[in-house]
Amino acid sequence: MSTKLVKTLREAIELSGLKSGMSVSFHHHLRNGDYTLNMVMEEIANLGIRELTLNASSIFDVHAPALEEHIKSGVVRKINTNYMSAGLGRRISEGLMDEPVDFRTHGGRPRDIALGNTPIDVAFIAAPTADPMGNCTGKFGPSACGSLGYAFPDAMYAKQVIVITDNLVPYPLLGWSIPEIYVNYVVEVPAIGNPKGIVSGTTKITRDPVGLVMAQSAVDVICHSGLLKDGFSFQTGAGGASLAAAKFLMDVMVKEKIQGSFASGGITGYLVDMLNAGCFRSLMDVQCFDLKAVESIRTNPAHQEISAMHYASPAAASAVVDNLDVVILGATEVDTDFNVNVHTDSNGYIMGGSGGHSDTAAGAKLSMIIAPLFRARLPIVTDHVSCISTPGRDIDVLVTQRGVAVNPKNAELKQRLKDAGLNVVDIHELKEIAERITGKPAKLARGGRRVANVIYRDGTQIDEILSVK
Amino acid sequence: MSTKLVKTLREAIELSGLKSGMSVSFHHHLRNGDYTLNMVMEEIANLGIRELTLNASSIFDVHAPALEEHIKSGVVRKINTNYMSAGLGRRISEGLMDEPVDFRTHGGRPRDIALGNTPIDVAFIAAPTADPMGNCTGKFGPSACGSLGYAFPDAMYAKQVIVITDNLVPYPLLGWSIPEIYVNYVVEVPAIGNPKGIVSGTTKITRDPVGLVMAQSAVDVICHSGLLKDGFSFQTGAGGASLAAAKFLMDVMVKEKIQGSFASGGITGYLVDMLNAGCFRSLMDVQCFDLKAVESIRTNPAHQEISAMHYASPAAASAVVDNLDVVILGATEVDTDFNVNVHTDSNGYIMGGSGGHSDTAAGAKLSMIIAPLFRARLPIVTDHVSCISTPGRDIDVLVTQRGVAVNPKNAELKQRLKDAGLNVVDIHELKEIAERITGKPAKLARGGRRVANVIYRDGTQIDEILSVK
Repeated sequence: MSTKLVKTLREAIELSGLKSGMSVSFHHHLRNGDYTLNMVMEEIANLGIRELTLNASSIFDVHAPALEEHIKSGVVRKINTNYMSAGLGRRISEGLMDEPVDFRTHGGRPRDIALGNTPIDVAFIAAPTADPMGNCTGKFGPSACGSLGYAFPDAMYAKQVIVITDNLVPYPLLGWSIPEIYVNYVVEVPAIGNPKGIVSGTTKITRDPVGLVMAQSAVDVICHSGLLKDGFSFQTGAGGASLAAAKFLMDVMVKEKIQGSFASGGITGYLVDMLNAGCFRSLMDVQCFDLKAVESIRTNPAHQEISAMHYASPAAASAVVDNLDVVILGATEVDTDFNVNVHTDSNGYIMGGSGGHSDTAAGAKLSMIIAPLFRARLPIVTDHVSCISTPGRDIDVLVTQRGVAVNPKNAELKQRLKDAGLNVVDIHELKEIAERITGKPAKLARGGRRVANVIYRDGTQIDEILSVK
Repeated sequence: MSTKLVKTLREAIELSGLKSGMSVSFHHHLRNGDYTLNMVMEEIANLGIRELTLNASSIFDVHAPALEEHIKSGVVRKINTNYMSAGLGRRISEGLMDEPVDFRTHGGRPRDIALGNTPIDVAFIAAPTADPMGNCTGKFGPSACGSLGYAFPDAMYAKQVIVITDNLVPYPLLGWSIPEIYVNYVVEVPAIGNPKGIVSGTTKITRDPVGLVMAQSAVDVICHSGLLKDGFSFQTGAGGASLAAAKFLMDVMVKEKIQGSFASGGITGYLVDMLNAGCFRSLMDVQCFDLKAVESIRTNPAHQEISAMHYASPAAASAVVDNLDVVILGATEVDTDFNVNVHTDSNGYIMGGSGGHSDTAAGAKLSMIIAPLFRARLPIVTDHVSCISTPGRDIDVLVTQRGVAVNPKNAELKQRLKDAGLNVVDIHELKEIAERITGKPAKLARGGRRVANVIYRDGTQIDEILSVK
């Protein structure tokens, strides 16, 4: 039996031919439990390799301290990512890096990889189960994370691919996601991640009354949108209010015996419940958010893994987001033109990223933002968002605890919701209510340096993020 | 819901931008029951498109009359294929085409497609089930053929992809093989094939005593090769003697409680029986040869579909054939240097092609040819094969009804088999026995024209086929 197994990660990196100035990539299905990015970057630093471009589908707090050191020491020169949590985000905003971070979307990243705009020299695939030839999956093993959707473009387009696993099984693996045809080396390590950080044990709906009010309003909007009928397709995030909306929507769909076609995106146990209750024929899963989703994708053939390209790439002939009816999304800021910020907090610090936000907003027939009018005494609805993550043209509705604002471009929907007796208000009015409660916020004092570019899913730059003084 | 459905095949061809001089491709899982190639070529001819390169993974007799007309009328200028049955093969050998046919292997074809050596402008995918966005599979539907393995490179690399189906289902299809990301148009037709011709109802082992003797010898060779132990991997063709060998091998493996890793290739019911009996952990299926295999790949997760790249492409980081222990192959001729011909019959007429012959021979630790010494009073073992399909360096053993010849390069195996008491004979002796019985054949009278090139799996030309006078 031939094999691609090499004894150590160091040996695999050496064999891959990685040199200073090249590009390395990582996927983020192990989330805040991921060990592999830090493990790999430490070996790379030890080998004296420097000036790398780091292309990671997302970066979490678990990566922040080590990455900060690698940036300071010159091992990492440039970062391409779709999401960066506050740990490293804050330091980037303070001016840690010489080169701006390029933020893309979950669809834009595979697009630019496939088109050769962001070539990858060596991709590192954290694989919860793999065989010695590199066939691998996220569905099984002690570090099971379910879908490996975001790792597909890396595997398919990187010049060299190294699979790192803590569950090596005999060839051939049953039920691979990524086939051996793309894999050059396989390394076995004691653990690729901490299961407790990979996925939360369960995702929970909000118990906050404001969140529950917004969730009910969101479902009211869906019910009166004209879209909720057999064949309905749906996506929602894993925030507490979004999950509550999913739960309320399930009750409606079960009661009215509506069978949707699919729910997509990052998948939670609530969507699994909806699948099992017959609300959807299928889940299209690019990433599992909790253990119930992992169990479901492992055992239920209707719960289907999709690649990042299949999820959202504009370079694909088509993607799942193109067929979405409704998506419920969050926001750190929304402005009166319906532009949405999910990159920075109200103080201007990086603490997120588009992920699939602008991909699903562009694809869905009804794109809905759920956001409270204010958080920690800072207004969420403003004149101008400090960063445009998703352009207002792709947002149809803003749901708050004080009413629902409809984008003027969608007059027909506005009339429908009014006719149905929903509390439809002008978005400017929402802004004023927010400011009456919180006071008008002081304009952010921004540094003069550009610390990040926000690149829309079609490859064009949609905004930039400036340093915070 | 968006859709890629177009009303007619003609409209899909027009939308694809197909023009004279371009390249079109087809896969052959519907075999001699395929309607799509003829259907598409007729529309193309009606549109006045000419001078096409036809890249078909295999061509069967069902395609012969129509293709002959398209060649004569100038619609088809060039053919790239891995296999051509006798119907068109005979006419090609008689000089039907101006340009030689390029024969590749099942691994060489995806290699050359992936490397851009044989670009495809429009791929036509006959899909037993598809949804309106082009997600498709061979596992379900009235024309179910099981694996769609050979269609993957076409879908992935063609500039335009048209899916043709007779079983359109709502989006999203559950259990796609080829995802929508590659598909531009979907066309619904009454029938993509005749189920009776797609796969035989059952494949049957030989009842011919000569075949049974050879099958038993083949299994004796495997038993004494040192390879038959836990983890064993195996491939065999669908010929009667090969199937008998599989049956005899199963009896040994069950009795001795040997659990192999996988069997691969075109899959028959006999290999399904071996999977179900625990002889293998998995089947790696690039093509289903009978209805039992189709049923198995649909229902048994251990019966896994593989793409043509995963099966055999030398451009892949690795392929299944690289991990084969034993393959049993056929031959129309074998020469005393162990070179094998599977392209032409003993009269020099094209009636086959390499398919996976030279791919598996190159990959397997033990490559075995089963062939009778003569057929229809023509010797099979000769001084020089009239066409080299697979080079002798990749063949280890020839099994005939009069003994087993071992390639001198494999002295250790030869000694093993002798020690085990097998009837090991020199290949020259086999040739003499054959000629004693049949008489020395007259040297073929060949025409001066080159009618085909035989291109080895690495892209180099290994032989040519001349016209028959």
